[in-house]
Amino acid sequence: MTDYSTLRIDPDRFLARFEALAKIGATPGGGVHRPAFSDAHLSARRWFLEQAEQIGLETQVDGAGNHSAILRCGPPDGRTLLLGSHLDSVPYGGRFDGPLGVLAALEVIQMVQEQGIRLNTHLEVIDFTDEEGYLMGLMGSQALAGLLQEEHLQHPDCDRDEFERILGYVGLSDGTILSAARDSTEIAGYLELHIEQGTRLIEMGAQIGVVTGIVGIRCFRVKFIGRADHSGTTPMDRRLDAAQGACAFSLAAREIVMADFSGCVTNVGNMKFEPGASNIVPEVVTVALEFRSGDEAMLDAMQAALLERALAKAQRFGLELETEAFENVVPAHTDERFRQTLSGACQTLGLEHALMSSGAGHDAQSLAHICPIGMVFVPSVSGFSHSSREFTQWEDCVNGANVLLQTVLTIL
Amino acid sequence: MTDYSTLRIDPDRFLARFEALAKIGATPGGGVHRPAFSDAHLSARRWFLEQAEQIGLETQVDGAGNHSAILRCGPPDGRTLLLGSHLDSVPYGGRFDGPLGVLAALEVIQMVQEQGIRLNTHLEVIDFTDEEGYLMGLMGSQALAGLLQEEHLQHPDCDRDEFERILGYVGLSDGTILSAARDSTEIAGYLELHIEQGTRLIEMGAQIGVVTGIVGIRCFRVKFIGRADHSGTTPMDRRLDAAQGACAFSLAAREIVMADFSGCVTNVGNMKFEPGASNIVPEVVTVALEFRSGDEAMLDAMQAALLERALAKAQRFGLELETEAFENVVPAHTDERFRQTLSGACQTLGLEHALMSSGAGHDAQSLAHICPIGMVFVPSVSGFSHSSREFTQWEDCVNGANVLLQTVLTIL
Repeated sequence: MTDYSTLRIDPDRFLARFEALAKIGATPGGGVHRPAFSDAHLSARRWFLEQAEQIGLETQVDGAGNHSAILRCGPPDGRTLLLGSHLDSVPYGGRFDGPLGVLAALEVIQMVQEQGIRLNTHLEVIDFTDEEGYLMGLMGSQALAGLLQEEHLQHPDCDRDEFERILGYVGLSDGTILSAARDSTEIAGYLELHIEQGTRLIEMGAQIGVVTGIVGIRCFRVKFIGRADHSGTTPMDRRLDAAQGACAFSLAAREIVMADFSGCVTNVGNMKFEPGASNIVPEVVTVALEFRSGDEAMLDAMQAALLERALAKAQRFGLELETEAFENVVPAHTDERFRQTLSGACQTLGLEHALMSSGAGHDAQSLAHICPIGMVFVPSVSGFSHSSREFTQWEDCVNGANVLLQTVLTIL
Repeated sequence: MTDYSTLRIDPDRFLARFEALAKIGATPGGGVHRPAFSDAHLSARRWFLEQAEQIGLETQVDGAGNHSAILRCGPPDGRTLLLGSHLDSVPYGGRFDGPLGVLAALEVIQMVQEQGIRLNTHLEVIDFTDEEGYLMGLMGSQALAGLLQEEHLQHPDCDRDEFERILGYVGLSDGTILSAARDSTEIAGYLELHIEQGTRLIEMGAQIGVVTGIVGIRCFRVKFIGRADHSGTTPMDRRLDAAQGACAFSLAAREIVMADFSGCVTNVGNMKFEPGASNIVPEVVTVALEFRSGDEAMLDAMQAALLERALAKAQRFGLELETEAFENVVPAHTDERFRQTLSGACQTLGLEHALMSSGAGHDAQSLAHICPIGMVFVPSVSGFSHSSREFTQWEDCVNGANVLLQTVLTIL
């Protein structure tokens, strides 16, 4: 049996693809603006399939819009090892979050292909749909893992009308999404390379992070309901001003989590004012509330504390409160054997590595429901992410791709 | 000389027109949605001109889009008394705010026309453009009063691009708007009937309010600038979260005005979050701040206190602050002789009236710069306004129109 422990990915080819992809939806600040289903996102996906076709890989697009490039390098009845991430970005995001994992995976299977290596599984690079949640967070990977039901699709992150309109635009529907569920017995596992999006690796002096578990995420629309009044003729003390409840709650949410939920995080990323005119007291303010923890019990406790405080703030200003959950990603744990193989690959490559948890959600969380998963982090300079400031040294990207390659060659 | 003191408007004709107009852009709640330049607003304006043409009035649309119906009932070289209000509404507003004044004025000049009455002035009913400020508050009346310069048009309430796009859509431009300035020597005065939009008349038991002065209004965009970070991987204590500054300021603004500026009001009617995703710490939150007082010195003091607090809240959360004024309406005073004539008309009609100031801005404020103005209020049930709950008893509307008629007959 050939020893491939000295095999490495081609860093120039990898870089050329990375730079070409970063031009699609590029922003002046050096990032990319590729929200799921935007023209830039659709262009990036087409570009990915073209790259795969040019090197003779089989390509596939499933009913959830997931784009795949497949190498039949296993036995005829072999299972498939998935390697993936996503090509969509948050609005005005960075060029590393997602694309790094897809392109590293493509480089890895191209290397396996070129070397004519036979493995115990087939390999499939997958670009998952809407990881960032323009319509529904982790939509593609959840669909593939069979986690979505009709009911979930009725309550996307956005308005259902918007959901239908945009799905229709790209030729998808509830039916096609549900059809994307894969038979778990055919999937051998899932590996994902991603930037850390934090500063722990750099603080620890590590080059590679081997992920132990991925945070759970819950999102709520917290709606404060008051009364629309003329802002010039309604005395201050007679108003039912929805903004007051929303603002008091947003300040309190941060204080609660910092004081009582060490290591957890919360965010108010948006508020919608209705009717939204400067001369009308706001009738409804809807707060987009998110909170995260790696521990399910902690998520329950945080949810109770936050929603209780929302009610108290609503009552304080004479408002009504409505809350609606729109995302619930349970914490996930990576597979022990996958972790050991990833650590072994780091040793083979002479890379300092550290075990760590992920504060960000990833498609791997969905896959954890149906197969063993492994996840690799590379350092983020200054920890910036979801911003054009996002940056990872190219050497670290190459290291990450080589860890993926050595893992693929030895894991199964 | 004929005694017209027993002349009254035709309440049935007035009501028929009021109900027909309320159907244009009607909302399920009983209000209207007619933001300036919306299809519903443009339809309402066409309907108004058709009504005027049907009864043989001269019509005119000026370069700011102001729609007029003119009765030449004065001497050949006579000046013109303007009677007006506006047909646009706030988003999902009520059916009385604006249309009542335009239709009462139309009814008044139709009555003068039918009776063949000759006056010392011509009469012109005017529907002003964009009173509520979809693009720029009081745009039409400010243009007519010659208060707008090129520089103002470069900084509308909305984005300049949106301003240009929408003006272009209705065939207007900076040049046409500036051309709408009228020669003040040709204008004898301005009268406006409007709903109170508050509860003071009902509390005082009065049927008619004779307005002494109109509040000044200042609006600012208060922009809190932090840093976009990933909401899952950035620890709470390392964030520069623009929402925290914006929320703390919005709560403080209310407290400052309630504590130190008795009788004044402030409102945060909207906030814009950028980038606005639930999984990104907000980088920029722009607060739409409005505050009002009938006293210019009070406005200065309030502005200083509010903007100072905005800066303190920004600093508290490590944020930068940018502020930009986008509206500055100076307080206006009505003409003493006009007030006396309005009070006299109330006595003639046997109506209880009270002197009062206006907490809402009105087109009359613009006209105060170039001619004597008078303003009449009728009671608003429960004080609701800028909402579909806005309501005035029809009897009170008729009373207001009769006050306008008796005033027109005796004022000049």
